[in-house]
Amino acid sequence: MEFDLIERIRRHTDVARDDVALGIGDDAAVVAVPAGRELAIAVDTLVEGVHFPKGTAAADIGWKALAVNLSDLAAMGATPAWALLALTLPAAEEPFIDGLARGFAELATPYRLALIGGDTTRGPLTITVTVHGFTTPGQALLRSGARVGDAVMVTGTLGDAAAGLRCLAEADPAPYAALVERLNRPTPRVAAGQALRGIATACVDVSDGLVADLGHICTRSGVGAEIDPALLPRSSAMLTHFHDADAIDFALAGGDDYELCFTVPADKASEVAADLARVGCGATRIGRIVEGAGVRVLDGAGGARVPRRAGWNHFA
Amino acid sequence: MEFDLIERIRRHTDVARDDVALGIGDDAAVVAVPAGRELAIAVDTLVEGVHFPKGTAAADIGWKALAVNLSDLAAMGATPAWALLALTLPAAEEPFIDGLARGFAELATPYRLALIGGDTTRGPLTITVTVHGFTTPGQALLRSGARVGDAVMVTGTLGDAAAGLRCLAEADPAPYAALVERLNRPTPRVAAGQALRGIATACVDVSDGLVADLGHICTRSGVGAEIDPALLPRSSAMLTHFHDADAIDFALAGGDDYELCFTVPADKASEVAADLARVGCGATRIGRIVEGAGVRVLDGAGGARVPRRAGWNHFA
Repeated sequence: MEFDLIERIRRHTDVARDDVALGIGDDAAVVAVPAGRELAIAVDTLVEGVHFPKGTAAADIGWKALAVNLSDLAAMGATPAWALLALTLPAAEEPFIDGLARGFAELATPYRLALIGGDTTRGPLTITVTVHGFTTPGQALLRSGARVGDAVMVTGTLGDAAAGLRCLAEADPAPYAALVERLNRPTPRVAAGQALRGIATACVDVSDGLVADLGHICTRSGVGAEIDPALLPRSSAMLTHFHDADAIDFALAGGDDYELCFTVPADKASEVAADLARVGCGATRIGRIVEGAGVRVLDGAGGARVPRRAGWNHFA
Repeated sequence: MEFDLIERIRRHTDVARDDVALGIGDDAAVVAVPAGRELAIAVDTLVEGVHFPKGTAAADIGWKALAVNLSDLAAMGATPAWALLALTLPAAEEPFIDGLARGFAELATPYRLALIGGDTTRGPLTITVTVHGFTTPGQALLRSGARVGDAVMVTGTLGDAAAGLRCLAEADPAPYAALVERLNRPTPRVAAGQALRGIATACVDVSDGLVADLGHICTRSGVGAEIDPALLPRSSAMLTHFHDADAIDFALAGGDDYELCFTVPADKASEVAADLARVGCGATRIGRIVEGAGVRVLDGAGGARVPRRAGWNHFA
């Protein structure tokens, strides 16, 4: 049964790859990893009502389910190759499935990502994607390499997705389309991650919120971080629709941005910003790695402030 | 957040493997496929109330979530290596998670299977496991190689899981423990699948029911199959508790058995049965591959009977 639906989705992403010996249609896919490469593997689940609001368009769900996973590969500096899609849905509604497939394919196709397997089951709407990408041994971007004195940087702009979620509650969300788009169609920073290989000392994607995710780098690297909220990159849509205090809270703790937060030796920050401007997202220096533990958000008066939200925790 | 729970589960399955360069704790795992091997990858989801009854013990859920996936690797003749676990659950209840981890680990440990990644989310209880195993190029067991004249065989016994599900409705299911155990703790036929490499012409695992799954071999191989219900292997527990007609219906269409159904050249059937007896499950010849399409169940009088259930289809 699963093949009918998963094969239907695969047809939208019809990518021929030499490294896929056997695709959808048997008990398992069979693939070959190119000589000299290692495999980065990640899995993420989206649940309706938790990770996207009920009523989200099927194509947006399909896009986002893949995007959050490609973002994990981006944070490793890996090159996307294959995905498997496990889809639990209340009913086999063809328009919904085709919409989901269309959104998934829109994002998959530019990366020549092949859908090699999947499963469909009946139940509450839940989408789990497993992605595989290639890395060169020893070159994956880890969370554990940040050093005292490194610059802390982020790609793109922060807080837009959280602001977009807030705007969905407005009677007319149309004026906020740019923010809602960032919520529904996040852009995984794959090219940026690849550009950071051999340069960044640590990297993470911003899925739970900047403070929470930079905190992961601090924990794994055994360091602390200070960030200056005045430096946080905010989009023009954010600046148009929100006061500065709200914009900073969204940027610090909003989550769902899928930008990369990374560290580089301080003397490389300008060069990296220029490199990432060339791949389209740019990068902004927002702070530095210090001795200690945890993330301090400076208040501009020599002290620290506590972000209003501690980051996204499904079980909090 | 996911690391706390997934790491907690991983500790139950603490397997050191040279091919895992980076396990749980970063944005993705990094692994290396040994030279000369290909990778078989499968994903399967279990949903509470669909794939296991509400009230199933956490340890049984953990076991089964891995078992149904290892069964897919078994059907390819692959050697299990790594798994990722995506767990959606209504609340972060430690006893439940520890139970689930214990069941998962009981099955994973003998295979030295490493849990390399995962995700935990809040929502209705759903478990998706992605498994990876090694195969030798060109030697994976496919569904597509059955030839006219081949013998059709199955490992173990059929129908027990479906009978066990029926028994759960009894006021006192204790006398049926052996059948319920087959429902809750299926044994993936990993060693059997490996023993069939280079011998079986086609192979599938029996998850949806014999007729449905053998039908997949027929479709992919462009052949038909005839099976003789009198030959279907039934367990002593089944024969003790059920009339022959019910036992045959369970065996034909029950699903959830996770035995292997495979085809071999007819003159190899006895040798294969002896080989699989040595790996503990045995194998029984139940029919043959014929010209045509689809699965015919013979009625013992020169005609064919229609199974009472067409097999498991979540969306039927």
